Amino acid sequence: MKKETILLGHGSGGRMSQELIRDMFMKHFGGEVLTAETDAALLDLPPGMTVFTTDSYVVSPLFFPGGDIGHLAVCGTVNDLSVSGGRPLALSASFILEEGLSLEELERVVSSMADTAREAGVAIVTGDTKVVEHGSCDKLFINTAGIGVLDPRYRGISHARDVQAGDRIIVNGFLGDHGVAVLAARQHLDISGEIVSDAAPLNKMIGRVLEEKVPVRFMRDPTRGGLATLLCDLAERTSLGIDLPESALPVRPEVKNICEVFGFDPLYLANEGKVVMVVPAEEADRTVALLRQDPRGRKACIIGTITHDHPGKVVMETEIGGRRIVDMLAGEQLPRIC
Amino acid sequence: MKKETILLGHGSGGRMSQELIRDMFMKHFGGEVLTAETDAALLDLPPGMTVFTTDSYVVSPLFFPGGDIGHLAVCGTVNDLSVSGGRPLALSASFILEEGLSLEELERVVSSMADTAREAGVAIVTGDTKVVEHGSCDKLFINTAGIGVLDPRYRGISHARDVQAGDRIIVNGFLGDHGVAVLAARQHLDISGEIVSDAAPLNKMIGRVLEEKVPVRFMRDPTRGGLATLLCDLAERTSLGIDLPESALPVRPEVKNICEVFGFDPLYLANEGKVVMVVPAEEADRTVALLRQDPRGRKACIIGTITHDHPGKVVMETEIGGRRIVDMLAGEQLPRIC
Repeated sequence: MKKETILLGHGSGGRMSQELIRDMFMKHFGGEVLTAETDAALLDLPPGMTVFTTDSYVVSPLFFPGGDIGHLAVCGTVNDLSVSGGRPLALSASFILEEGLSLEELERVVSSMADTAREAGVAIVTGDTKVVEHGSCDKLFINTAGIGVLDPRYRGISHARDVQAGDRIIVNGFLGDHGVAVLAARQHLDISGEIVSDAAPLNKMIGRVLEEKVPVRFMRDPTRGGLATLLCDLAERTSLGIDLPESALPVRPEVKNICEVFGFDPLYLANEGKVVMVVPAEEADRTVALLRQDPRGRKACIIGTITHDHPGKVVMETEIGGRRIVDMLAGEQLPRIC
Repeated sequence: MKKETILLGHGSGGRMSQELIRDMFMKHFGGEVLTAETDAALLDLPPGMTVFTTDSYVVSPLFFPGGDIGHLAVCGTVNDLSVSGGRPLALSASFILEEGLSLEELERVVSSMADTAREAGVAIVTGDTKVVEHGSCDKLFINTAGIGVLDPRYRGISHARDVQAGDRIIVNGFLGDHGVAVLAARQHLDISGEIVSDAAPLNKMIGRVLEEKVPVRFMRDPTRGGLATLLCDLAERTSLGIDLPESALPVRPEVKNICEVFGFDPLYLANEGKVVMVVPAEEADRTVALLRQDPRGRKACIIGTITHDHPGKVVMETEIGGRRIVDMLAGEQLPRIC
């Protein structure tokens, strides 16, 4: 079916929908649970509280250095479950397709989702496909919802209230790679060899830290809005301050350069393979060491401290010795980043 | 915020996203579980196997006689869980918004979702919002995923293999109302007073039948592709035949008329408040009586029989005494119906 394209009939619920399900979705996602014979998946979840989340993905372009919309749609939802304190188990996958989308492009995306789900150890167990007329959507949007169970090694669902003054803030590597990779693909910049999206499922890396009984106080992934928005939100919710020495922020020189050219701030760029962990000060070095044992955490480092000073505010000590109040993203820096 | 519209910044993940979540989604969906403070919902599900499903909704126009995209997005997923044998408990709601969509329209949809969820007794517990540039989607798409537990009063997940020759096929009322209501709204036909969408959550009506220990063999909702597609699929999967007397099919005269004008067949029109139940012959009358006790089932009736004759085929005895082989929907009759 390589040269064919999506037709309205593929979304009819009739014969063509059945063929698409069989030749595309069952082919790549089919497993123990996913079957074309029932409209819902039946799951035998392990005991424990259930964690449930969802995200829609509208990234443009569909393919970018280091990933594609399908890879992103699996990573994003796996990571939302993981940073919330869940162990991801099963995903749904729902597609909105534009009439005229090539089946070859769709299959690349679907195959990438299947690969990423395998890597993360989750199953894609149920799904849906809608088709809209040419011009009514931009090629392909994906929604994934995810189910997991609360990881018994974690303290419950990740919540800002558990954060304390003195805690250290850790991130597992370079900031802004995803944002710059998508920007480069969109603008046809020739940097594809240098910077690739960090999009990756983080559940195994996070599991490694929890397995070693690090008493993680808080986790979240700095996706849309970037690190700055995540930390501003955390400072506001805890009524504690955050100190962020600029010299400690891991940003690639190439990312800094691109940001200067486009007037972006890497603090606000989206990441899709990063987790911010807040841990007690005395656990910080051990946490960094554990993260560095994972390929997704080789460049993990401590980037800041929770403080009683300047409550509700994130203050960056700049490299030239000044102080900058970091605010939440206002407006939009780079739309359709995920 | 009535006169304002959606801006790209509402999808940034930053300050404007937070305001939209607070002033729109938390306002209408906020409850015990949904909170802006965590990225995933934590659910304490009752014991039993978990049922999980998803659908994206792209219906055009957004508002139609008897419903809107939000009402549909809740009904559709509640019903998918219910007809699969699940008791619906929690939904996710994910929005793809076009830049320029009026906040007033969005709020009508969101408020309608909240009302429908309340009616069905399910909670909207987690969500997401993305914004795309003007022209990159058609106003508003919604995805809902749903979680339930297997209803202990049912035999497991609804599956064609449980159907037997001699079983009766029941539907809870008139066919094609949803399809015609959406068609009328799209074509600006002046029939809005006569035919309204049947979109409705069916979990309580189905629960009533299960509560009375009717040994239902199979359930499914005849949405996209209509009754014909559902029954063809059932005949193929069971390798049994289906007899469908045309005289028994409940179709409003107004729907028949519109179908004649537009060249549609009501057998293929979408329904969003109907369930097809297959039950043992000796249980058929009791099932109809139970369905009729519910406002959603007042016009319930037996529409056909499972047979060993013509295996894999649906045969309609027409009102003029002929026989017509009913096939699955080929191509597309009416796109963007849900």
